[in-house]
Amino acid sequence: MTELEFIIKQISKTNKKNYENYVVTRIWHKINNEEIKFVTQQYVSRPNGHALTDMYFPQFKLHIEIDEPFHESQKELDINRETDIIEATGHIIERIKITDDLRYVNNQIDSIVLKIEALQLLQIKNKSFEPWNLKKELDPLQYKIKGYLDIKENPAFRTILDASNCLGQNYKGVQQAWFPSKVYSSHYLWFPKFYENARWDNKMIENGNTIIEKCKIEGKKETYVQDTIKKYKSIKRIVFPRSKDNLGSILYKFKGVFIIDEERSNENIGMVYKRVKTRFDI
Amino acid sequence: MTELEFIIKQISKTNKKNYENYVVTRIWHKINNEEIKFVTQQYVSRPNGHALTDMYFPQFKLHIEIDEPFHESQKELDINRETDIIEATGHIIERIKITDDLRYVNNQIDSIVLKIEALQLLQIKNKSFEPWNLKKELDPLQYKIKGYLDIKENPAFRTILDASNCLGQNYKGVQQAWFPSKVYSSHYLWFPKFYENARWDNKMIENGNTIIEKCKIEGKKETYVQDTIKKYKSIKRIVFPRSKDNLGSILYKFKGVFIIDEERSNENIGMVYKRVKTRFDI
Repeated sequence: MTELEFIIKQISKTNKKNYENYVVTRIWHKINNEEIKFVTQQYVSRPNGHALTDMYFPQFKLHIEIDEPFHESQKELDINRETDIIEATGHIIERIKITDDLRYVNNQIDSIVLKIEALQLLQIKNKSFEPWNLKKELDPLQYKIKGYLDIKENPAFRTILDASNCLGQNYKGVQQAWFPSKVYSSHYLWFPKFYENARWDNKMIENGNTIIEKCKIEGKKETYVQDTIKKYKSIKRIVFPRSKDNLGSILYKFKGVFIIDEERSNENIGMVYKRVKTRFDI
Repeated sequence: MTELEFIIKQISKTNKKNYENYVVTRIWHKINNEEIKFVTQQYVSRPNGHALTDMYFPQFKLHIEIDEPFHESQKELDINRETDIIEATGHIIERIKITDDLRYVNNQIDSIVLKIEALQLLQIKNKSFEPWNLKKELDPLQYKIKGYLDIKENPAFRTILDASNCLGQNYKGVQQAWFPSKVYSSHYLWFPKFYENARWDNKMIENGNTIIEKCKIEGKKETYVQDTIKKYKSIKRIVFPRSKDNLGSILYKFKGVFIIDEERSNENIGMVYKRVKTRFDI
């Protein structure tokens, strides 16, 4: 995918929403800077659930919401367990109010453009600006250089292989989604699917702090909880749930380190894991 | 309709054409000038038929065509006899070639923006620039001030009443589509529909130089040609066919002055009229 294709695909998500398309294209064409990334229709986690922002600039943790007085109710949250929902604590939300007055709408947009340009200048001054690079942005090397994974930065990998090797597994290929770390003792890597399938029904709840794992496999499910507690009681799980980004490509996003919550686990609920770390040094 | 609504409606016609949407929005947001009008998907008459241009700036008689290598064949001409097709002789056509290279595409767009800005400056210098004014643009008064109608300028009226009064009829209301001029002797005003209906089947052919009028009314059609020739032989017809602009609103566009072509008219073909003037002084 080229940069142009990426941008066109992001814009095309606003196709049927005329005012959204107007605002998003105006912001992008006015910024006119290939080093600045944006996506449209980004799901974010909020204390009381989820929300959708119309445009998101990850480098500046800045979201834009477009308020259309007459279409407010049309905004629907098309969320499933695979939806890529980002942590947005501390992010900036800018709102654009659509009215009949073209100048008023344009002025709001243009002042947000100025703000984004100022944020970029500030980052350049602080030497913290990382230019958008489509090819490099999911390169596992960046996390090795940083030396950590932190859920605040929404770290993500395209494949289980990329994530594994970032944590030192040094694989050529990998078929499993659950295996012991070669580097970190008492740690396993786990790449769960948080949507129900024939064998499992796993989910992440409580704002990402808890994972429920329910085995559906005949002959295994009956003793799964007691077997798992026995075998993995002291194991820490570095968890990369499978999700899909907002163009539909698969992502494995780091969601923290989890341990078994023995008290809450039982045959009815399934295995319960609780998050003990949101940052992992690598 | 406000300016913002007009612009949104024009842009929304590019909704399903992602690259077209990108180019059109970039041009508009970069020009960023409420005094400049544009429309999208404008039909133009060409010597060998019709064509559709992706974006049209009427003040500068400038058209933009977007060449998408992989979608060329998808461009379909959705023309019927009501389609508003403008005369585009002497107009400028600029082409934008879509490639994978974002900078190359943007550079082409940006140089067209510069050209449009230069054309505007030139017109301002020449005192020929007419700022876009949505409310005034179909005001009949402008033609009275000019003192003429010329098909080169694609003059159009929203209603039969507007056109009639521009030619001095001084009506309060008008129900007919064919009546004698009160001001210009031996002239009639004619507002034909160029699509087949229960009573008539009229069309304009030969690049606007010829009108065919076929009566379908029982008891009238049998002698229509001989009656019409007898009654209106020396009459000049100031013709405003009904059409629809590219947002679907009705327009009566001046298409010239026509007289009966007696040689070509007969019961089979119907009445034939030939254009004798493309400009009419008022």
